[in-house]
Amino acid sequence: MNDLSLATGQRSLGDPDLRYPLWPPLTRGCPASSTDTTSYPVEVDYDYDRVPVELFQQPVGSGLDRWAPLLPPLRAPGLGEGGTPLIEIPADGVFIKDESRNPTWSHKDRLNRVAVSAAAGVGAPGVVVASSGNHGASAAAYAARAGLRCVVLTSAEAPPAVNSFVRSYGAVVLSVPTPARWPLLRRIAAETGFHPVSNSTTTHTGHAFGPEGYKTIAYEIFAEIGVPAALFVPTGYGELLFGAWKGFAELVRLGLAPATPRMFACEPAAGGPLNRALAEGLPATSVEIGPTDAYGINCPVGGYRATVAVRESVGRALLVDDAELAQAQQDLGRSGLWYELSSAAGLAGFRQVRDEFDGPVVCVATSSGFKDIGVGGVQPEVVDPDWDVVRRRLRTADIAC
Amino acid sequence: MNDLSLATGQRSLGDPDLRYPLWPPLTRGCPASSTDTTSYPVEVDYDYDRVPVELFQQPVGSGLDRWAPLLPPLRAPGLGEGGTPLIEIPADGVFIKDESRNPTWSHKDRLNRVAVSAAAGVGAPGVVVASSGNHGASAAAYAARAGLRCVVLTSAEAPPAVNSFVRSYGAVVLSVPTPARWPLLRRIAAETGFHPVSNSTTTHTGHAFGPEGYKTIAYEIFAEIGVPAALFVPTGYGELLFGAWKGFAELVRLGLAPATPRMFACEPAAGGPLNRALAEGLPATSVEIGPTDAYGINCPVGGYRATVAVRESVGRALLVDDAELAQAQQDLGRSGLWYELSSAAGLAGFRQVRDEFDGPVVCVATSSGFKDIGVGGVQPEVVDPDWDVVRRRLRTADIAC
Repeated sequence: MNDLSLATGQRSLGDPDLRYPLWPPLTRGCPASSTDTTSYPVEVDYDYDRVPVELFQQPVGSGLDRWAPLLPPLRAPGLGEGGTPLIEIPADGVFIKDESRNPTWSHKDRLNRVAVSAAAGVGAPGVVVASSGNHGASAAAYAARAGLRCVVLTSAEAPPAVNSFVRSYGAVVLSVPTPARWPLLRRIAAETGFHPVSNSTTTHTGHAFGPEGYKTIAYEIFAEIGVPAALFVPTGYGELLFGAWKGFAELVRLGLAPATPRMFACEPAAGGPLNRALAEGLPATSVEIGPTDAYGINCPVGGYRATVAVRESVGRALLVDDAELAQAQQDLGRSGLWYELSSAAGLAGFRQVRDEFDGPVVCVATSSGFKDIGVGGVQPEVVDPDWDVVRRRLRTADIAC
Repeated sequence: MNDLSLATGQRSLGDPDLRYPLWPPLTRGCPASSTDTTSYPVEVDYDYDRVPVELFQQPVGSGLDRWAPLLPPLRAPGLGEGGTPLIEIPADGVFIKDESRNPTWSHKDRLNRVAVSAAAGVGAPGVVVASSGNHGASAAAYAARAGLRCVVLTSAEAPPAVNSFVRSYGAVVLSVPTPARWPLLRRIAAETGFHPVSNSTTTHTGHAFGPEGYKTIAYEIFAEIGVPAALFVPTGYGELLFGAWKGFAELVRLGLAPATPRMFACEPAAGGPLNRALAEGLPATSVEIGPTDAYGINCPVGGYRATVAVRESVGRALLVDDAELAQAQQDLGRSGLWYELSSAAGLAGFRQVRDEFDGPVVCVATSSGFKDIGVGGVQPEVVDPDWDVVRRRLRTADIAC
């Protein structure tokens, strides 16, 4: 399979002087710099001097393989992930990066192509993932594609359509009480040799290789419109935020881009561990989370990756409430784009600070509307097809007839 | 907007000597050749001598605009439709054309970009569509994008998640009894001036311009793998079948391809108007339809476009039953691809005749699994997270631990 990768090893984000071999992926972060209260992730290092100049000249299209030199080894087959379009929304003056156009209709496919490749690379018989939504389904899809088994630890509160989704790829899906998921993830990994592709540390470190997949979002945006003034990113653990930032940072390092965009993390107001960590000057922290329908990004625990992305790009962490999310979601629908509530966080965040920008701005929309709470709960009222009845309905909707 | 179109007029499929001006689109088919029992559609003619040679040399990617010379005028803005990947399935030796990667996660976006452009071209204040699923949602999305109103006449039997989907783009959605939809479509078009983008004739003619959008599937496949031996297409009214065939036929006409693939229509065994029409030597006919979960393609009425595509390409109409569909759907899920049941008809059909082919074969998969009957009906059983219980579950699933 694909071994064009220029990856040279793993590097601690907690102490960039700490380096580790590329294999095995450090699925529990940096062992040396992590403390009882803060787990530091690792990232992947590359031989940047050997990046072929043609890499950024080829057309944008689907399949992460075209970016292989700047990704960890792609040992698991792809599903045509990435190559998603930028859609301009004139009313807001922004571009939407439409990640619902991935193989399982969310950005998570970019991560899972890489994380499942790591599982294949270490010869694991399968992967195990704790997720009540997109991440679990995506891991299941890539495991299936690679001929690996998959165990998804999901929670009973996942929306009904998402339950069908997660089960569609032949994974073993176990709905367990939410707090039991992480101890069980570690236990299953230990007892089965399955490779964990979601987080199991105190503050979030997640997969060592996975977030590298998100760099391709930056490469694609750069190929289409260059460097935008800012990126607004729905933020849970901050892996997407970090990956997109790192992609631009690499373009700067390679002499192709003058600077990175400012990275704006858009967290639900019900929680917001990154916002809290930045306010308190912490590398990462945890918060009590309140209720929100943006379940996909309502994380009680943050991660240091997000802090790095915001700090290095002179960005910010914004809190968006459910009313702002619902308005952004509805307005996107009225532009022909249907996303889940969490995915509207980018546009909702942008609207809080829109006056600060005059250059092009990109809001990342992560996932299709099918994954939302409430989907499938619409009880259609059957309308009498008599013309007088229908005409009244149309007139009520301001349609002249 | 985009007026690179080389479209010159409309031509009757019933009598190719009958030509009509390009505007207005003949939304009720060819008025001269249609009879009481058979409605003949029209297609769009182009000035093929003026097709720029570069047209087929540019990279495949999203947005129908790149094919503008061979499409009707694109007067409505796009959503990055098309540019979907071909995914190879080694177990079956086929390529899947993954149309779930479109803006509203089905092939219908290719048609609606073009059909809503026609509505914009005639200055209609909106569009009206009878559909219980993908077509209605897609029309609503493109109308919203173009700033046009949309009325969707849906049926109460549409799956719950699809009800949410169709309503997400701000259309006026009226659930009416199924047989009332077509008379109401005509009445609404007459009383409001809304442009109809679905069928309203005895046998199917559908929109005059819309199926031209499906030609881009052929252009994309050709750019990636050349001319496959055969295309297997989930078939309801046959617009997709015709459009994909016509795209290849144009490549032959332009001297770029040696022949078209053989076109295999894959209809649900519960109905199958094309299969019946071909067996009886009719241009198009209607059938009684029985129960099937492949609701997206269970059409009682066929259209002459499908007959042309099968006849001209020496193809065939195959009937696939729900067990064959369910097996193909499950196997695609086990390859990392989740489609609605109707979408699995291409692979199910191919499996009936696989021994006849040794060249590359493409099965078109039309739409994501979220649109299926039964989605959201999964009641997750909550599992006790005790390790002994979990271990037993894993062992039952053949996972060693």
